[in-house]
Amino acid sequence: MPDFPPVDLNADLGEGFGAWRLGDDEALLDVVTSANVACGFHAGDPVIMRRTCEQAAQRGVTIGAQVGYRDLAGFGRRRMDVAADELAADVLYQLGALAAFAEAAGTGVAYVKPHGALYNTAVDDLVQAGAVAAAVATFDTALPLLALPGSALEHAAIRHGLPFVPEAFADRAYTPDGRLAPRHEPAALITDPAEAAAQALRIVHGHVTALGGDRVPVRARSICVHGDTPDAVRIARAVRAALDEAGIAVEPFTR
Amino acid sequence: MPDFPPVDLNADLGEGFGAWRLGDDEALLDVVTSANVACGFHAGDPVIMRRTCEQAAQRGVTIGAQVGYRDLAGFGRRRMDVAADELAADVLYQLGALAAFAEAAGTGVAYVKPHGALYNTAVDDLVQAGAVAAAVATFDTALPLLALPGSALEHAAIRHGLPFVPEAFADRAYTPDGRLAPRHEPAALITDPAEAAAQALRIVHGHVTALGGDRVPVRARSICVHGDTPDAVRIARAVRAALDEAGIAVEPFTR
Amino acid sequence: MPDFPPVDLNADLGEGFGAWRLGDDEALLDVVTSANVACGFHAGDPVIMRRTCEQAAQRGVTIGAQVGYRDLAGFGRRRMDVAADELAADVLYQLGALAAFAEAAGTGVAYVKPHGALYNTAVDDLVQAGAVAAAVATFDTALPLLALPGSALEHAAIRHGLPFVPEAFADRAYTPDGRLAPRHEPAALITDPAEAAAQALRIVHGHVTALGGDRVPVRARSICVHGDTPDAVRIARAVRAALDEAGIAVEPFTR
Amino acid sequence: MPDFPPVDLNADLGEGFGAWRLGDDEALLDVVTSANVACGFHAGDPVIMRRTCEQAAQRGVTIGAQVGYRDLAGFGRRRMDVAADELAADVLYQLGALAAFAEAAGTGVAYVKPHGALYNTAVDDLVQAGAVAAAVATFDTALPLLALPGSALEHAAIRHGLPFVPEAFADRAYTPDGRLAPRHEPAALITDPAEAAAQALRIVHGHVTALGGDRVPVRARSICVHGDTPDAVRIARAVRAALDEAGIAVEPFTR
Repeated sequence: MPDFPPVDLNADLGEGFGAWRLGDDEALLDVVTSANVACGFHAGDPVIMRRTCEQAAQRGVTIGAQVGYRDLAGFGRRRMDVAADELAADVLYQLGALAAFAEAAGTGVAYVKPHGALYNTAVDDLVQAGAVAAAVATFDTALPLLALPGSALEHAAIRHGLPFVPEAFADRAYTPDGRLAPRHEPAALITDPAEAAAQALRIVHGHVTALGGDRVPVRARSICVHGDTPDAVRIARAVRAALDEAGIAVEPFTR
Repeated sequence: MPDFPPVDLNADLGEGFGAWRLGDDEALLDVVTSANVACGFHAGDPVIMRRTCEQAAQRGVTIGAQVGYRDLAGFGRRRMDVAADELAADVLYQLGALAAFAEAAGTGVAYVKPHGALYNTAVDDLVQAGAVAAAVATFDTALPLLALPGSALEHAAIRHGLPFVPEAFADRAYTPDGRLAPRHEPAALITDPAEAAAQALRIVHGHVTALGGDRVPVRARSICVHGDTPDAVRIARAVRAALDEAGIAVEPFTR
Repeated sequence: MPDFPPVDLNADLGEGFGAWRLGDDEALLDVVTSANVACGFHAGDPVIMRRTCEQAAQRGVTIGAQVGYRDLAGFGRRRMDVAADELAADVLYQLGALAAFAEAAGTGVAYVKPHGALYNTAVDDLVQAGAVAAAVATFDTALPLLALPGSALEHAAIRHGLPFVPEAFADRAYTPDGRLAPRHEPAALITDPAEAAAQALRIVHGHVTALGGDRVPVRARSICVHGDTPDAVRIARAVRAALDEAGIAVEPFTR
Repeated sequence: MPDFPPVDLNADLGEGFGAWRLGDDEALLDVVTSANVACGFHAGDPVIMRRTCEQAAQRGVTIGAQVGYRDLAGFGRRRMDVAADELAADVLYQLGALAAFAEAAGTGVAYVKPHGALYNTAVDDLVQAGAVAAAVATFDTALPLLALPGSALEHAAIRHGLPFVPEAFADRAYTPDGRLAPRHEPAALITDPAEAAAQALRIVHGHVTALGGDRVPVRARSICVHGDTPDAVRIARAVRAALDEAGIAVEPFTR
């Protein structure tokens, strides 16, 4: 059996707000090695951020800043034409706020991953991708960006001297050209835990089976699992179990 | 002439939001030695926070975190019954966010001063005062709290091992028992620059002349001036000029 | 068997926001006769308000405006010292917004009930109670206020010429002096569906059994049930079933 | 001299928020015949909305709903990819809220004009334009939309059976193809009151002189003037004076 490098499992966490909850944070924190913690702009409030950082730190789960558009009503899922200097300031604000809680929990912010529409925009939009990278570089040039390989964000990370960590998705279907199938397409979402686990193993081997059946190469140091539904937690657990059983080391990509 | 210790001049800054401005930040930054920078909860947005920190740093003006209630619509001037753990988290969030901008500007957050209704509540309310102090101590136990001497916040600072810096007001009238005259009373606000300058000099000498004419002792290492009106900027300048002319060293209270 | 007047069942509805949900609106709408619909200040967004109004209208459930403080992060549960003119404007804004959706659904806003901390404040605070009543009277002097009998809000309703509808709580314990037992007390919340159903029947008979066992008179044309937990929906169903079985007409208090 | 039909003058009003003000509402209300009142999503709060409606009503100025994206931090000037059903709900919410204040002031909402990025998006985007028109038609099918002639919003108005009122700009330069010159171009903004007044007169005659000197036909029942700077108020006054002196009836387009 060839020796595979370790892989990280990341998920979005702390995405409630005030009286509202989303997903089962405790269940996910027992599965993942990296927690993308919402920072208050698309979700997350200070109480939730503090608790999520504490719970992650207690379990040795790495904390990343899940930065998003300032859009609570839209959960950060609506693209906004934010000017580069405004977006950079928004990202820096969120980073600083989360860092206070991560440090209070005895650790720190170890990476940054954009959320929702900002993530998608930063795949192609050099201006917004550049603003995110510039803000992160202002905060700490050693902080990795976690995002889609080949994205504008990867280019921006390189340009700003930031480490870049590519991720792949266990529970999303890929197109033959190696991109994510749009959410509205049938079969875009993988809802069977066994299938997601199989895709995670293929990702570790460096490829996925695209819609149509082609084998497509994929580059990932981290695998993203979702957690906002009971099914999603089951998927996350199946992915983790499959990786563990295959002898793949599931470890954070940060030191 | 006796030798007087140095005094600090502080003012609220960066209190715009989005398209809206409040006060003449540039004018005030040329007058004060400490800038209480709004952190986004009662006023201030990331773009304004970045610019205010940069402008303060350029002038060698010390940056403090002006933390407030989460109440943009009320400008943080309405008392809110926020539970201690929520308030502490809100304060820590604001502190972390501002620190990111202060550090990006080559400096850091050097003190904390509550804003508006939170300031007033923390005069008497041990729970809210304690929450503010607890949050600051979590962030950095060397960070001074700037507030009214004798307030619950002073007690809370001592209890949490934080330095406390007492302030007095050049442009507010005092009652014979040494408290601020309520804003709605006639003569509560000192609007004549010469009178404010005279009160600032009396403060340096350790007393004020209260409404009614009594001489009341006052303890202050910093003098607060307001800046949200054109008149207020004139007052601030008059206070600064009077202190300079009297040979009082106007310096930040922080190193 | 004496003939009892009809009673209304009311519950808070539409209290999600954006991606977040709270409670099982559909289940509750099948139980209650009056829906207190959140108006966007403490909870509720335009999409949720539209859907809640449509679902209520389809079932013939009466729509009331559940107005609250502008405090999404605190779910309107934190008392705020809002000035009377600001509070009246906030209430009128919420009323107008909800009316647009209620009318689009073919009906209208039929009553007003304050939410959370505003409800509690309006029990004793004549200024805030008066502001709520003034706003409602500005909107429509025929619109009833639904609240605690004997409260400042009842007085304010009378003063402003508004109908007042007293309510009682099936799932909250009462003190011997006829007030609600504070939430933090043990036994303050009635969690057993059978017990809540029994209390609802006693309310219809004009009394409750207070903590300690005293029989305390209570005046109510509407009974409030909660719905933000699975248990609460079971309680609501038990209350409704008990009233139906006892031959009590469960009807809205509005025409 | 030929007989010209009456023309309306409209301006954005009530665009402060909380402690913040923008523009000189009182000065503008003495100049215009139609007030585009902000509804709380991009600017405006309930207190400001109430006062603006009262002041407009006192002067006989017609009240229109200036609806915008939910983006206080961006003042509604950033395009957002809001889904049609969400946007329609947002617009209906704003309309209902403003109507409560307009009716309390003894009048009503007489038209709708989108603000900022929503205005610009609705020039070309049939989905968002359709959502705005659908919401307005739900509220009142007799309510005119005020916007750029030839825009997607005009088409949407027609499709939903709404009256459409075309407007032109006294203080914006036009391109030879009859569109507004982009703001970032030199000479895009007309800052000389005399020049703006001359352009207003040309608009009444059915044309403007485009950048480059071509005479371009323009269709307008209302002329928009801005008011967010002291200069802009001078421009508005010059436009009004020129129209008055030319004997043009300056009247609302609504009854």
